[in-house]
Amino acid sequence: MKTIRGIGASPGIAIGPAYRFQRVDLHVDTHSVHDVDAEFVRFFQALELAEGQLRLVHEKARREAGAEQAAIFEAQLEMLRDPELLGETQAAIRDQRLNAEAAWWNTVERFAAILEEMESEYFRARAADIRDVGRRVLRILKGITEEPVQLTEPVVILAQDLSPSDTVGLDKSLVLGFCTAGGGETSHTAILARSLGLPAVVAAGPEVLQIPSGTHVIVDGVDGLLIVEPDEQAKVAFVQRREALTRLREQAFAHCKEPAVTVDGHRVEVVANIGNVQGAFTAVEHGAEGVGLLRTEFLYLERSTLPNEEEQYQAYRAILEVFGQQPVVLRTLDIGGDKELAYMELPKEQNPFLGVRGIRLCLAHPELFYPQIRAALRAGVGYNLKLMFPMIATLDEVRAAKRIVEACREELCREGKPVADNIEVGIMVEVPSAAVMAEHFAREVDFFSIGTNDLTQYTLAADRANAQLSDLISAFSPAVLILIDQVIQAAHRHGKWVGLCGELAGEPLGIPILLGLGLDEFSMNPSAIPLAKQIIRSLSMTQCQELAREVLSLESAQAVKERVRERLPFLRLS
Amino acid sequence: MKTIRGIGASPGIAIGPAYRFQRVDLHVDTHSVHDVDAEFVRFFQALELAEGQLRLVHEKARREAGAEQAAIFEAQLEMLRDPELLGETQAAIRDQRLNAEAAWWNTVERFAAILEEMESEYFRARAADIRDVGRRVLRILKGITEEPVQLTEPVVILAQDLSPSDTVGLDKSLVLGFCTAGGGETSHTAILARSLGLPAVVAAGPEVLQIPSGTHVIVDGVDGLLIVEPDEQAKVAFVQRREALTRLREQAFAHCKEPAVTVDGHRVEVVANIGNVQGAFTAVEHGAEGVGLLRTEFLYLERSTLPNEEEQYQAYRAILEVFGQQPVVLRTLDIGGDKELAYMELPKEQNPFLGVRGIRLCLAHPELFYPQIRAALRAGVGYNLKLMFPMIATLDEVRAAKRIVEACREELCREGKPVADNIEVGIMVEVPSAAVMAEHFAREVDFFSIGTNDLTQYTLAADRANAQLSDLISAFSPAVLILIDQVIQAAHRHGKWVGLCGELAGEPLGIPILLGLGLDEFSMNPSAIPLAKQIIRSLSMTQCQELAREVLSLESAQAVKERVRERLPFLRLS
Repeated sequence: MKTIRGIGASPGIAIGPAYRFQRVDLHVDTHSVHDVDAEFVRFFQALELAEGQLRLVHEKARREAGAEQAAIFEAQLEMLRDPELLGETQAAIRDQRLNAEAAWWNTVERFAAILEEMESEYFRARAADIRDVGRRVLRILKGITEEPVQLTEPVVILAQDLSPSDTVGLDKSLVLGFCTAGGGETSHTAILARSLGLPAVVAAGPEVLQIPSGTHVIVDGVDGLLIVEPDEQAKVAFVQRREALTRLREQAFAHCKEPAVTVDGHRVEVVANIGNVQGAFTAVEHGAEGVGLLRTEFLYLERSTLPNEEEQYQAYRAILEVFGQQPVVLRTLDIGGDKELAYMELPKEQNPFLGVRGIRLCLAHPELFYPQIRAALRAGVGYNLKLMFPMIATLDEVRAAKRIVEACREELCREGKPVADNIEVGIMVEVPSAAVMAEHFAREVDFFSIGTNDLTQYTLAADRANAQLSDLISAFSPAVLILIDQVIQAAHRHGKWVGLCGELAGEPLGIPILLGLGLDEFSMNPSAIPLAKQIIRSLSMTQCQELAREVLSLESAQAVKERVRERLPFLRLS
Repeated sequence: MKTIRGIGASPGIAIGPAYRFQRVDLHVDTHSVHDVDAEFVRFFQALELAEGQLRLVHEKARREAGAEQAAIFEAQLEMLRDPELLGETQAAIRDQRLNAEAAWWNTVERFAAILEEMESEYFRARAADIRDVGRRVLRILKGITEEPVQLTEPVVILAQDLSPSDTVGLDKSLVLGFCTAGGGETSHTAILARSLGLPAVVAAGPEVLQIPSGTHVIVDGVDGLLIVEPDEQAKVAFVQRREALTRLREQAFAHCKEPAVTVDGHRVEVVANIGNVQGAFTAVEHGAEGVGLLRTEFLYLERSTLPNEEEQYQAYRAILEVFGQQPVVLRTLDIGGDKELAYMELPKEQNPFLGVRGIRLCLAHPELFYPQIRAALRAGVGYNLKLMFPMIATLDEVRAAKRIVEACREELCREGKPVADNIEVGIMVEVPSAAVMAEHFAREVDFFSIGTNDLTQYTLAADRANAQLSDLISAFSPAVLILIDQVIQAAHRHGKWVGLCGELAGEPLGIPILLGLGLDEFSMNPSAIPLAKQIIRSLSMTQCQELAREVLSLESAQAVKERVRERLPFLRLS
């Protein structure tokens, strides 16, 4: 028996034989071509075939894995038509007389490398997509038919990392779980596993690749472990845990549309973080009572011009319709620095996470901000829309943003357009200064939503995307929890409500602490909602309040998590 | 009359005619050479002549402007012998058959551009140096003799920006002050002006360059203003302010070696931030009662290998000798991320200010940390040395660092070497988590030193080197002051002392606030010490405590500064 440590990327326990997934090695030969036109023809035929394949794959993904997975292949279809990608490949064929394989693959690698260097998880995930679609075209050019993996029994998939194309061919009914050597919590494998509800461990290191197919393994997606050749005792223990987990999950899903009320009768709101209309449907399916964070970046990325007011209005309206009278908190554009827009020339910054992001960018670029605010004010008519500004650090900023909301409202009224009124306006609390000065901000806004992902990175002065610092960064750090406590207390003193839309809100060990601190609204990825509600229903406020006071005085994130596990041992099951 | 706003980079008032400084335009012709060897000879002759010039300039700078200014030319002399710089130029002459002018200037520009992209002020200042020395060689190659500026009357120098070579030829006795269109608080002009005690305004924008020589102007280095063609009333007012300022300065310098005691008898320590032994002498001259921040980076930068223990021992010893029994707080190596060491391959980071810096790097690289700690423990024998760790975010880090100090002490004892004992160990409080958890840290350490420059940038999540965010970043932000207050209170509850070594400690408007918050030790650039002591002597603790309570509840940095000016109007003079 041997235990390999990784990161638990999707909870649950899988027990079974390993299947070592290996991709066909696609070697790219480089040579000169004489007939450039013939090479163009080869290239465009390959693109056409790839498009056909992707359409089929897209259909399959939609049926089997849902809208979110299918969207990946839609994005890949877009890439096959990307003028820059095609233009550069053609130029390399024409000017350097390269064969289509080399011209295409060089271009793909260059684009992927650019994307990989970006901060944003979004763009880094796109690098994997561009390579995935790149390999598909390359296979066609080389005349290689990739045989889909034929699973014959339920297995645990072991791999370096898995691309969307790798997984679309897998018979999901025969997959018990995943363990990858590379990847992270936002890698494709992790996202897929969570959407399938399968356990996954990622970033477990190269040892994983030494395990031959057929070896008996256990994936523990809660603690982030791969147990190789477990002994009888371990097997029995894990089987019991798995059964308990399954029961809990089933129970959770069965009750996901019921409210989240603690055993002593305290009700909190459980809402979703979403980024588009597909997410809205998923959220409702999983029992979301509204949206605590509507990311509006989807409207700005993946296109070549700014979306106009009308496009935004339609998009927001479509999402609001899904939720009827339930609240939807729209976060205004949170872009800049790490997230680039191709059609806006933003200066390159030395420390994009400490740069002109979020509200800073919007206040500096009214041409971005006004249409969004106008679209939101119009879309909110008849619904329960709230507005929220990201990256607020000073009172001046929130006042400036509120003045723009007022200016847009007056403009729309003058134009005779219907405008939502009584829209609540709030801020993300993700910059430490906003937390420290929460008392002042509470007078200016209707609500707070704590963004623990960024708040943690700034409070600890540690880039959350820097792998070398992953030990240091945890939203369970007492410093972060102390700030959360201050924010909630300040807000409540002024009769304002507080939400939290970072990962912490959906973490089983985080929920009792946040409940105890008095958090009013828990916003999380839709798939986490059923379990979160179930956990809330199993807790008492008195117990959580006691626990919260205790952990605030602890010394480290590790100590906090241990204390929660100690006090609430049943949470280890989740 | 017209007022141009810039940044006050060196306090004081200058009144007089403008002198528009313009550099000779050095156009670089590019052409092919046939006789490569002849071009090599031209190049090396130019280098030799440049070296001769620099030796003279260095002497002149040492006599006129002191050791710090002279050191700039020493660094430039080093650059003339830099193997990479010379090697690349030679390669360009040999391989591309470029003329020496073009080969040299291309190389200089490339090196300067690399340095300019770095975070660190240190390296960005080196970019100006490399261009300065580059122009000198280029002038020689082109046979241009730069006529030194011949001033005939006392003037206010207006320029785009000034390089060390530009200013070495200036007759300082005829310079009243500076105003530059570009530059920043750490540009050469700013540093020179402060070391000469002349007023300077920097970053005043291109309008400055439209003002013809002879125009009557006033430089207000306190408020960062250039007044063009002032009317009589303004002139009279500024003359009065200047006289009051002069009196204050003279008085301050005359009393600089006396202690800093408030009118109601509260004494605080006023110490210096220094980076080498020259700084130590300057500090003593200006009345420093010790060193609150000894930056040890000087030993690691500007060289091609790691300094060994013995070299470090000698360097620390030399500085400690200057201070005898006065305290010297040695900050362990604060490098990584933004400050690169040529001889250490550190991975490039997306957000170096949120990266593996300071203690994070040292804990990950014991080969850096052990020799420094050993050298410090040995050097401290017989002196009053204290150790301080930078970038501490968690208790685990400070404990790990303390364990290494203990391990080094035991090692040295085993080797029979004398070791300083009872060395106080403290941390920089510059990461928000350290401030928020000050109560815990106060139990672990003997003292805190608040690094407001970094604490401000993390608290506001705004890169302090990002020009676009300069409005946002201020150590006077109430959020920063609230954290400072928490740190001081926590430390005092545990009987520990607190210093502050950011710019705020030497700011006339900051001093009364920090006094009122109970700060024990004010650490600043040596030149700021006399005035700081004089200001402290003019204040009462009661008054400052009241003021501090008031400003903690204000809403913005602007409001804080205004309140201090209102309550203590005489500070506007400083």
